[in-house]
Amino acid sequence: VEKEGLFYPPDPASRGSCFIGGNLAECSGGPRAVKYGVTKDYVLGVEAVCADGTVIRHGGKLLKNVTGYNLTQTLIGSEGTLAVITKVFLKLIPLPPYRLTMLALFPSLESSARAVPAVMNSGVIPSALEFIEGEAIAITSRHLGREIPQSEAELLIELDGDREQRVNEGAEIVCEQAMSLGAEDVLLADSAQKQQELWDMRRAIGEAVKSLSIYKEEDTVVPRSNFVPLVLGVKEIAARHGVTTVCYGHAGDGNLHVNILKMDLPDEVWNRDLDKTIEEIFSLTISLGGTISGEHGIGYSQKKFLPLAFSPEEIELMKRIKDAFDPKGILNPGKIFP
Amino acid sequence: VEKEGLFYPPDPASRGSCFIGGNLAECSGGPRAVKYGVTKDYVLGVEAVCADGTVIRHGGKLLKNVTGYNLTQTLIGSEGTLAVITKVFLKLIPLPPYRLTMLALFPSLESSARAVPAVMNSGVIPSALEFIEGEAIAITSRHLGREIPQSEAELLIELDGDREQRVNEGAEIVCEQAMSLGAEDVLLADSAQKQQELWDMRRAIGEAVKSLSIYKEEDTVVPRSNFVPLVLGVKEIAARHGVTTVCYGHAGDGNLHVNILKMDLPDEVWNRDLDKTIEEIFSLTISLGGTISGEHGIGYSQKKFLPLAFSPEEIELMKRIKDAFDPKGILNPGKIFP
Repeated sequence: VEKEGLFYPPDPASRGSCFIGGNLAECSGGPRAVKYGVTKDYVLGVEAVCADGTVIRHGGKLLKNVTGYNLTQTLIGSEGTLAVITKVFLKLIPLPPYRLTMLALFPSLESSARAVPAVMNSGVIPSALEFIEGEAIAITSRHLGREIPQSEAELLIELDGDREQRVNEGAEIVCEQAMSLGAEDVLLADSAQKQQELWDMRRAIGEAVKSLSIYKEEDTVVPRSNFVPLVLGVKEIAARHGVTTVCYGHAGDGNLHVNILKMDLPDEVWNRDLDKTIEEIFSLTISLGGTISGEHGIGYSQKKFLPLAFSPEEIELMKRIKDAFDPKGILNPGKIFP
Repeated sequence: VEKEGLFYPPDPASRGSCFIGGNLAECSGGPRAVKYGVTKDYVLGVEAVCADGTVIRHGGKLLKNVTGYNLTQTLIGSEGTLAVITKVFLKLIPLPPYRLTMLALFPSLESSARAVPAVMNSGVIPSALEFIEGEAIAITSRHLGREIPQSEAELLIELDGDREQRVNEGAEIVCEQAMSLGAEDVLLADSAQKQQELWDMRRAIGEAVKSLSIYKEEDTVVPRSNFVPLVLGVKEIAARHGVTTVCYGHAGDGNLHVNILKMDLPDEVWNRDLDKTIEEIFSLTISLGGTISGEHGIGYSQKKFLPLAFSPEEIELMKRIKDAFDPKGILNPGKIFP
C-alpha cells in the first residue's frame, strides 16, 4: 500500500514470513507501536469461521460501531483459539514521507534506559525507540561479519513525519535529550541506505543471539516509566542465578525481550533453574505494573506462567469465553491455558 | 487533563452529564472520532466486577499486551451487560494547541454530502467533520433564539494541530475543496468565542429537534464513501412513508443521526409505519456496508432490529459470551438481545 501513499504501521519482526491472519491472531506489535499502536488498532472488522463451521461477520469499513459485542476485538490476540479469521478490514493511514534514524551510544545500561522516558517526555513521539544492550550489538556484529559502533547500550531511534523540517527539529531535540543523559555519541542515518543498515542490524539481533546457544526468549512489558527498574532487575536476577541474558526490545513501549541463554551451563543446572529464573523475572514484571507477554502471546511455552498474570477466576472466565466460541475445544487445543 | 497539556479526545454529546464508566460501557464517540478514534482506542486496561462479585483486572499502563484474551476490549461497548467497570487506565495524548473551526454553507443536501469524502481525501484530516441539514439549523436557530447562517445543508469542520501555520494551510485546502464542490460560503471561526458559538449550536441541535415532537432517533453508520447514498436514501424512504426526518451527525465517520419526528401524523399512522420506516433505513444502511448503531448502542429500543445486523448464529454467539460473564443474566437484563 505504500506505493499508493498509504501506510499500515504494524511491523512485527516476522514481517518477512508472517501472514496478516497470524498478525491478527497474535495482535502483532513491532518497533512502530510506540507511535502507531499495534494490530488491534488497525482492524475495523473481520469475517471468521467458528469451530462448528459457522461463518461470522463483525464490523467493516466503519470507524464507529457499537452494534452488539465487539467480536472483532475479542478475536484479535486470541491466538487462533476462538475462530479462524478469513477476511479482515484494515485501517490505513497516510504514509509519512520523511524518516530519520539515529543510533545513540551510551556508556551503561542504566543511562540508556533512563534516556527512554526522557525522550518520550520531550514532546517528540518517535516512530521507533529500540533498546539494545551492548552484548547484543557485539554478537550481531560478529554474526553479520559487519562493523557496528559498539557501546555498553544503544538506542535506535526513528522519527517520521510529513514535513522534513519537523522531523529534523525533532531529531535535534532527541539528540539533545540523549546527550544530556550521558550518550557518548548519536549517529544519524539520513539516507535510506544507512537507515536500512541500522534496521537490518536490529532485525538480525534475535537470530544472532539465538545462534549462540540453547535459549528461551521472554517478552516482558511494563509501563514505560518502569523500563529502568525492569532492565536492571532482570540483570540482577540473572546474575543471582548465574545465567546469561541478552536483552533488547521496544523500549518506547516498555516491551523488553529477554533472551536467557544456556551457554555452557550444565544441563542439570539449566533444567533446575530456568523456570525459577523466569518466574522471578515475571514476578518483577508484574510488580512493576506489567505483564508476561507484550506481543509474542502465550501459546504452549508460556502457558504455565499464566497464573502469575491472572487469578484463577480470571483464567476461568477466559476459559468460559473459549467455550462460548469453541465448546469442543478443537481450535488450537492446548494453547494459552495451563 | 488539558490544564496539564494533555488530551483525552472522545467527546460524546452527553459530555456534560455522562460518566467515564458509561463512556466505556457504550464505547462513546463524538465529533473528534474522525481524527482521534473512539473510546475503545483510549482504554488500556480495566478493573471490573463480575455478576458473582469476582473482581477481574486486565491490562494497565501498557501499550502492548497479548497475555490471555483481551477482556478490556470485550467489555468496552458491552452496555453494562457483562461486568461493572470500576477502574480504568486511559491513554492521553499531547493536547494540540491550535484549533480552527469553519462552517461551510451548501445549496443542497447532496452537494454537502459530496464534499465529505472530498475533504477527507484532500490530505488534511479534520478533527471534526459534522453534517447538519438546513432544517436542523433553522430549528436550532429558533430554539436558541439566535441568528445562525442558514442554508440547505452545512458542514461544521474543525482542524487542530501543534503548529498554527499547518492548521491555517489545512483550512485553506478544506475551503478550496468545499467551494469547488459548490459551497456558497465558508465562515471561519478563528477566535475561541466564535468556535464556542458554533459548537454550542451543534450541541443544541438534538435537544432543539426533539423539543418539536415525539421522535425516534437512529444512529446509522456506513463507510464514509457511502455517506451520499445514505443521506439521499434516508430522505427518499421518509418521503415515501410521509414522515418527517431531520438529519445531522458525524459525516467524517459516516455516522448519520436520523431523527424521525411524529409531528402531526395521526397516532395510528405513526404506530403502524414507524418500525417499517426504521427497518427500511437500517436495511439501506446495511446494504451500504454499514450497521445500525455507530455510537449510541442497542439497549432496549434498538434490540428488535439487531437481527437486521447479525445472523441468528452471530446473536447466539454473543449470548454465549453474555452467559460466560453473567450466567444468571442479572447485569442490565433485557438489553441488546431481542
